[in-house]
Amino acid sequence: MEIEVQLTTEPIEPPPMGAVLRGGSCGAWAEFTGVVRGEEDGRPIAALEYEAYEPMALRVMRDILARLGERHPCHAVRVIHRVGIIPVGEAAIWIGVAAGHRQEAFAMLSEFMDELKKDVPIWKRRALGPEEMPLRQSAGA
Amino acid sequence: MEIEVQLTTEPIEPPPMGAVLRGGSCGAWAEFTGVVRGEEDGRPIAALEYEAYEPMALRVMRDILARLGERHPCHAVRVIHRVGIIPVGEAAIWIGVAAGHRQEAFAMLSEFMDELKKDVPIWKRRALGPEEMPLRQSAGA
Repeated sequence: MEIEVQLTTEPIEPPPMGAVLRGGSCGAWAEFTGVVRGEEDGRPIAALEYEAYEPMALRVMRDILARLGERHPCHAVRVIHRVGIIPVGEAAIWIGVAAGHRQEAFAMLSEFMDELKKDVPIWKRRALGPEEMPLRQSAGA
Repeated sequence: MEIEVQLTTEPIEPPPMGAVLRGGSCGAWAEFTGVVRGEEDGRPIAALEYEAYEPMALRVMRDILARLGERHPCHAVRVIHRVGIIPVGEAAIWIGVAAGHRQEAFAMLSEFMDELKKDVPIWKRRALGPEEMPLRQSAGA
């Protein structure tokens, strides 16, 4: 199973389905995008800030996908997780799975998302207003 | 729940996530694309041909989505089913679901696909080679 994981500070651009589907052995392409909602713990928010311990986050995501791939054999899985400040309505994570049949693809999507929340060192917090973010301001963001 | 269903003879272009996600109440956007594989019933193929009894196919797909929406409340669901000759590696169906949380979105995707195969008057058959398709040839396709 091909595995590709990526962290980015830019808005997520899901890659096109690509060559893997044209080979003729994939009948299923499933995607999930996790989007920042306008409310966190019952309070309205404008954005979330995600922070990752990058080398470990990448390694743990790869390990989870490889392990799930043994139970649910798929052809290819790609994950892109955004970090930094993510405004409401924008994607924090995207996962795309190519598989022979839809059952494996759905299982991979949903089990990966469950494991991600438990085990991957990526944290989120309510992003503060600009006047409360001197560090970001001084960094020119 | 917003429901949109469509049949098309053209290659499927999944619409962008759109305004529904920017509203801030959707945390999940899940998509599934069913792709024609290079083998059908153990024999290699170059394409499948899908035929629909159109008014009923649209109505039944709407009914299934509305019924599933009672169990798995989502914000919006869009389905595009391609008909006609579909080459290996191209999409026969696309479904996109916007929901508050991923559980509803995943349930909607996978249960819709199961029901689609049972109840919707859309049939597929192995597409024949061009020399065996005088009707298509005379239609200039």
